[in-house]
Amino acid sequence: MTTPKLKTIVYRVNVEFGDCDPAQIVWFPNFFRWIDAASRHFFVSCGVPSWQETSKTRGLIGTPLVDTQASFIRTASYGDVLEIHTSISEWRGKSFVQTYRVMRGEEEIMRCNEVRIFAAQKEGGGIRALPIPEDIKALCS
Amino acid sequence: MTTPKLKTIVYRVNVEFGDCDPAQIVWFPNFFRWIDAASRHFFVSCGVPSWQETSKTRGLIGTPLVDTQASFIRTASYGDVLEIHTSISEWRGKSFVQTYRVMRGEEEIMRCNEVRIFAAQKEGGGIRALPIPEDIKALCS
Amino acid sequence: MTTPKLKTIVYRVNVEFGDCDPAQIVWFPNFFRWIDAASRHFFVSCGVPSWQETSKTRGLIGTPLVDTQASFIRTASYGDVLEIHTSISEWRGKSFVQTYRVMRGEEEIMRCNEVRIFAAQKEGGGIRALPIPEDIKALCS
Amino acid sequence: MTTPKLKTIVYRVNVEFGDCDPAQIVWFPNFFRWIDAASRHFFVSCGVPSWQETSKTRGLIGTPLVDTQASFIRTASYGDVLEIHTSISEWRGKSFVQTYRVMRGEEEIMRCNEVRIFAAQKEGGGIRALPIPEDIKALCS
Repeated sequence: MTTPKLKTIVYRVNVEFGDCDPAQIVWFPNFFRWIDAASRHFFVSCGVPSWQETSKTRGLIGTPLVDTQASFIRTASYGDVLEIHTSISEWRGKSFVQTYRVMRGEEEIMRCNEVRIFAAQKEGGGIRALPIPEDIKALCS
Repeated sequence: MTTPKLKTIVYRVNVEFGDCDPAQIVWFPNFFRWIDAASRHFFVSCGVPSWQETSKTRGLIGTPLVDTQASFIRTASYGDVLEIHTSISEWRGKSFVQTYRVMRGEEEIMRCNEVRIFAAQKEGGGIRALPIPEDIKALCS
Repeated sequence: MTTPKLKTIVYRVNVEFGDCDPAQIVWFPNFFRWIDAASRHFFVSCGVPSWQETSKTRGLIGTPLVDTQASFIRTASYGDVLEIHTSISEWRGKSFVQTYRVMRGEEEIMRCNEVRIFAAQKEGGGIRALPIPEDIKALCS
Repeated sequence: MTTPKLKTIVYRVNVEFGDCDPAQIVWFPNFFRWIDAASRHFFVSCGVPSWQETSKTRGLIGTPLVDTQASFIRTASYGDVLEIHTSISEWRGKSFVQTYRVMRGEEEIMRCNEVRIFAAQKEGGGIRALPIPEDIKALCS
């Protein structure tokens, strides 16, 4: 028996001067900026409609973050090209685990595991979790 | 016997319009921006000289992040005032654990634990960990 | 005859490590981040309700930028405290000019003039300009 | 007699969810983030060595901004692909004018003119302007 391979999408980032700090390396909140872009890019690449569209059709406004765990393995600087390998490694009742490996060629720069939800706007402000949409799960697995 | 209380410093944040995303809530990488500011503010408040000064006097350029773990408990939006309670909860040989609780009044918004190092510039680019400076440890405990 | 003094509000910024670039100085897009915060802070300080509230009560979602002109006079770095002096220097039919001076003590760091509009959401996406609300104009002059 | 065509380089941007604000459109400081990336990309594409390298070989640390003038013509939102057309439209003694047009297909989204300098680190902090390097001018014209 073999483990089925997870659907994996690669998102490319050009590291810019302004992404780096006085220590000449990427200032870490920018990694989370890129990871959030890689998360959305994953859904779009799997064929899920944009959140603009799902907001209108089913009240799904996006996939906000509940928990994150990240390790910073090597530094990066401007001029580097990074590739973020993204997949969904676990589906739960009202949340899912999205997993990222940020690579520079063969070198691992950063690794991240997130718990996210599919969210709807709540009456009076804030957001609430929707049950995992089965059609989206099918597209992304 | 009682646990000695950790030195805790509070950093204040005004959440702005541009910190929020199309879901009307704080876009999560901004929390890491504020936490990084709270980290530096902690050292300054404890009496540690600025990294500009320590760069010159002892080659210490800052405290880059090695690992982070964060939980997002409640959403926040613009107009909110957040208070980040910061302390150092553990000292290791070449790293330390910095701990944050982001509060809006009595409500906990976010919680974060980080492993950081004291860093020097490495020959040829990148950074390397320095042993924990005992004087800084004394000021921050 | 004397020129009536414009209503001026001061917004305070702590410059952080992550606001600075590999040249050790504030990376310029961050000045626009602060200026946008100073713009909103001006309205709030003048007694204008939040955009969250005006979105619901009158469809006014904020004051997007149409034109900007800025001069960068001195550099700033982390640890600096900046004060942004904001006023509205001109009212037009469907737009207004908001003016900023960014100071570090007595030194001028940056200067900016913007044309902004009061905006409503347009059917099908995008935004449109509203006529200047007379009550807001009265509060801010 | 004809006007010689300026060397023009195109930089591509994917607009992301987190680049947009509660009004569902790009938050304007992000345009300046992209323009700064397009500026550096212009030099790299023209064959100018990286600022990391010129810092070491000739003390040139980058091209900080002195003045900027920008017009925001149409809004953009996440999912949009923007193309920034960049050229240098004027060379002065110690500064130059860099010009940008941000396009979405055939639609003009934003336009920007900047005055920048070639900078060296100044003793005791801050930066100073270098005379225009003739070799860089030749590569970029």
